[in-house]
Amino acid sequence: MAEKEISSEEIFKEFKEHSIAEFFKKNRQMLGYSGMVRSLVTVVHEYVTNSLDACEAANILPDIDVAVTEIGENKYRVRVKDNGPGIPKKFVGKALGTILAGTKFHQYVQQRGQQGIGAAGGLLFAQVTTGKPLFVNSSEKGKAYSCKIAIDTQKNSPIVTEMTDLTEEFKGLSIEGEFADVKYEKSEHGIYEYLKRTALSNPHCQIKFTDPDGKENVFLRAVSAMPQKPVPTLPHPLGLAINDLLEFAHASQSRKISSFFVDTFARTTSNKVAELREIAKTVDFDKPPRSLTWTDAEELIKAIRAVKWIAPDATAIIPIGEAQVKIALKNILDPEFMNVVERKPRVFRGGIPFVVEAAVAYGGKAGYQTDEGSAGAILRFANRVPLLFDTANCAITEAVKTIEWKRYNIDMETQPVSVFVNLSSVHVPYSGVGKEAISKEDEIIEEIRLAVMEAARGVQQFIRGKQHATFEAGRYKTTMRYAKQLAKDLSELTGANEKELFDSLDKIVTKHYPHLKKQDEEENAKAAKGKKEEAEEEEGAVSE
Amino acid sequence: MAEKEISSEEIFKEFKEHSIAEFFKKNRQMLGYSGMVRSLVTVVHEYVTNSLDACEAANILPDIDVAVTEIGENKYRVRVKDNGPGIPKKFVGKALGTILAGTKFHQYVQQRGQQGIGAAGGLLFAQVTTGKPLFVNSSEKGKAYSCKIAIDTQKNSPIVTEMTDLTEEFKGLSIEGEFADVKYEKSEHGIYEYLKRTALSNPHCQIKFTDPDGKENVFLRAVSAMPQKPVPTLPHPLGLAINDLLEFAHASQSRKISSFFVDTFARTTSNKVAELREIAKTVDFDKPPRSLTWTDAEELIKAIRAVKWIAPDATAIIPIGEAQVKIALKNILDPEFMNVVERKPRVFRGGIPFVVEAAVAYGGKAGYQTDEGSAGAILRFANRVPLLFDTANCAITEAVKTIEWKRYNIDMETQPVSVFVNLSSVHVPYSGVGKEAISKEDEIIEEIRLAVMEAARGVQQFIRGKQHATFEAGRYKTTMRYAKQLAKDLSELTGANEKELFDSLDKIVTKHYPHLKKQDEEENAKAAKGKKEEAEEEEGAVSE
Repeated sequence: MAEKEISSEEIFKEFKEHSIAEFFKKNRQMLGYSGMVRSLVTVVHEYVTNSLDACEAANILPDIDVAVTEIGENKYRVRVKDNGPGIPKKFVGKALGTILAGTKFHQYVQQRGQQGIGAAGGLLFAQVTTGKPLFVNSSEKGKAYSCKIAIDTQKNSPIVTEMTDLTEEFKGLSIEGEFADVKYEKSEHGIYEYLKRTALSNPHCQIKFTDPDGKENVFLRAVSAMPQKPVPTLPHPLGLAINDLLEFAHASQSRKISSFFVDTFARTTSNKVAELREIAKTVDFDKPPRSLTWTDAEELIKAIRAVKWIAPDATAIIPIGEAQVKIALKNILDPEFMNVVERKPRVFRGGIPFVVEAAVAYGGKAGYQTDEGSAGAILRFANRVPLLFDTANCAITEAVKTIEWKRYNIDMETQPVSVFVNLSSVHVPYSGVGKEAISKEDEIIEEIRLAVMEAARGVQQFIRGKQHATFEAGRYKTTMRYAKQLAKDLSELTGANEKELFDSLDKIVTKHYPHLKKQDEEENAKAAKGKKEEAEEEEGAVSE
Repeated sequence: MAEKEISSEEIFKEFKEHSIAEFFKKNRQMLGYSGMVRSLVTVVHEYVTNSLDACEAANILPDIDVAVTEIGENKYRVRVKDNGPGIPKKFVGKALGTILAGTKFHQYVQQRGQQGIGAAGGLLFAQVTTGKPLFVNSSEKGKAYSCKIAIDTQKNSPIVTEMTDLTEEFKGLSIEGEFADVKYEKSEHGIYEYLKRTALSNPHCQIKFTDPDGKENVFLRAVSAMPQKPVPTLPHPLGLAINDLLEFAHASQSRKISSFFVDTFARTTSNKVAELREIAKTVDFDKPPRSLTWTDAEELIKAIRAVKWIAPDATAIIPIGEAQVKIALKNILDPEFMNVVERKPRVFRGGIPFVVEAAVAYGGKAGYQTDEGSAGAILRFANRVPLLFDTANCAITEAVKTIEWKRYNIDMETQPVSVFVNLSSVHVPYSGVGKEAISKEDEIIEEIRLAVMEAARGVQQFIRGKQHATFEAGRYKTTMRYAKQLAKDLSELTGANEKELFDSLDKIVTKHYPHLKKQDEEENAKAAKGKKEEAEEEEGAVSE
């Protein structure tokens, strides 16, 4: 109070603009670089994601090679190499060293990356922690080159040095960087688990991972067909805010507002435009779209919401597919039983289409192994990318937690159950820049709930069946014990051959329970070599 | 597979850079604009935070006036007015309409805002949902002006229109905007609660809130002294990464590396530089700092970590203060008992200083009222700003949840307990751009745990005392019942006066428990008018 008031002129002497790179340099935790284990996974995640997108964009079955080497205390070298199309020399600096630059942001199509932040974010992290640039090998038109890329954070622009044409054969892209404040751990939140889950949701790709101990882990390709390619589509009118409509209109080349609608948006025929005309009477549909005013746009959005539309086309979205999810889950979890559900496309925020796939797997390697036994696990994916962190913050977790599992005879606290969810969309609403969790939009949570409940219903029958089978097997065993005793007693009483008596009794019982006899015999045989197998299984990785 | 491989040249035809405004337009949930209730709180939060920072920067006791009016279905007008210094005309556009611009980013001092994102983010949200610009009134050098501000998202630059000099008296800044996809709710996560908590952590400010029903709620100023002003300090050497050191060196005006160290960093005397010289022998301390190489910087950082330093100066950090937290908690929660703890400054990430204040309050309006009774509540703050969302994602929640509350006789599930935590720092590591939660850095979690446990220990004594008091009171009541009966029996036996007998017995008992007699009488008196008061309390707001 005693101090003199300071004027705004004085305060605003400090006014400055700063770059997005400066911002993330100060706030690297927002990109996923917090915690040593997580930071290392984030590096791998960013470059593997980019590699997968690049391979698929180029129609190439992805072969990804990840190597992590310890080079000091909490300091590692990471190399991610792919067999993709590479990056043209002209773009390599900006593609890997400018935040908010990329080929994906403006396309209305499903991709793993969508922001143009990840690759340059990784470089920023390398630079801040070790000061080392990225070392890049790439091919371009059949020729290979190498270079180093650093980032000028104040300008958010790349510094490319040592650009060299290579004479050796190389096809694809290889990115190598040195990172400190990181740690390798083979934990549920580590690189190994991340790549295992990537293999699970991308059965068409092959991933080799050389860990810091020099051990090679290979996640084999499970299907050799490329996933169907998502087709960029036009935006659906129901997904438009007033502001969007104005921006589309002002950037449009169409001559009239009427034709602008047909040219620019999905599901918009000239009949539909006629319907809109009927409602938005104050709007002149014959004037050029660049003269559209806010008031016009407001009227048009009202009209759009009053008219019936065919649902958005989902060709821009390619889920993993029921068959492939099955193959992948079998491959990775080898459950006793599973049920996979692929739902129809839905929309959120009025018109952004998305598709949910869900599976519930029971037994085998499903769930977690805890000290007390088994527990349920949630495997979260968005556009086939595994989400390992920010669990509590995610729409998938929220949806799974609010399901009344008891109704499906499932106890997530004690049973070996894995719940798998993959959300595919042209625009996944991540809750943060680090893309670790899906924002809790009501429509998304509800759709995930429905998908998981549908999947759970399938497993419920199996679990009920299992309970029934346990009951039957018990009855068979009791009956057989009784038959044995009866044969013995009768033989003693009558002098008849005990074995003959038992065989005829066995025949009568087995007529009622033929499958149980077989099962019983198998179990006895298995019990013998069981211990040996278990020991082997524990050693082995998913597929090495 | 059958499809032709596509070249990188083809793919990179789509390569584009885009603006940070475009990015957040697509990802508004990252700024806190997800969910209708939360979105409206975020708007208020951004402009109130800016107002408080501006008033304090100008040495003005803040008077904030918030009004929310319903103007359509899920559509509200929000106005936030302050008595601060205003914004100079020249800067008003960029200050409110450019993302990543502001007076705070480059200063090494504690402020609520630190990113230069919030104000323009609010405008972006208004524009996307209603297309309306912000309407701004401001003073500059004693004169008032008004204008409208929109944002060109592709360029991340402001569009200022209708700039008008005002003849009427006006001092401060008033921002008014129209927002859709929002909803007002007087809930734990609503504006009312947000402002109540803001008042709690800022007892020097007065806040008036006119809600959509036209009801005026006033949170009165509880202390009329300005908080001590944080002093910008030099960065501490232990907080430096190699990259930081290089950037400071290359931007330095000092002649030599030796003087650069003394000029640029805190706690760095020429004696300290001599110590560094001893260790980093390969570095030439007499060359100009702009010629510092990465290898030099690497050696210097090693040397810095090998030398002993005085802890960072915490004058850049001003916590609320024990006395003021007490006044505020009394004012808002009126607990039966509380214990407030202010800890010494600590550092995270090597050298970023922070201070934790914690309080545990018991009884009164502390905790939540649930259908079953009471439950514990966590009141989270960062630099005096209440954090209402992303609870599970926050270091404060994590710290509080991992405390063994039983050891303090506290049951967070059933008792009326509020745990208050305020973290103050020149750089709060928020987990997301929306600044709703503090990133789970180990050093921060540990320090919060220690602070809360220290606060809990104080309350533990009270609760023990209370348990003892309950026990004593019970004994007193039993004894008095016994005395009554004894007086009656004796009177019947001896013919002596029953009242006289009782009075003399009473005197003996009360000599041992004088406080209990008084308490007992008060309780009886209170019981009579208790119901009336309860009814009144439920109606009243915190301070109206």
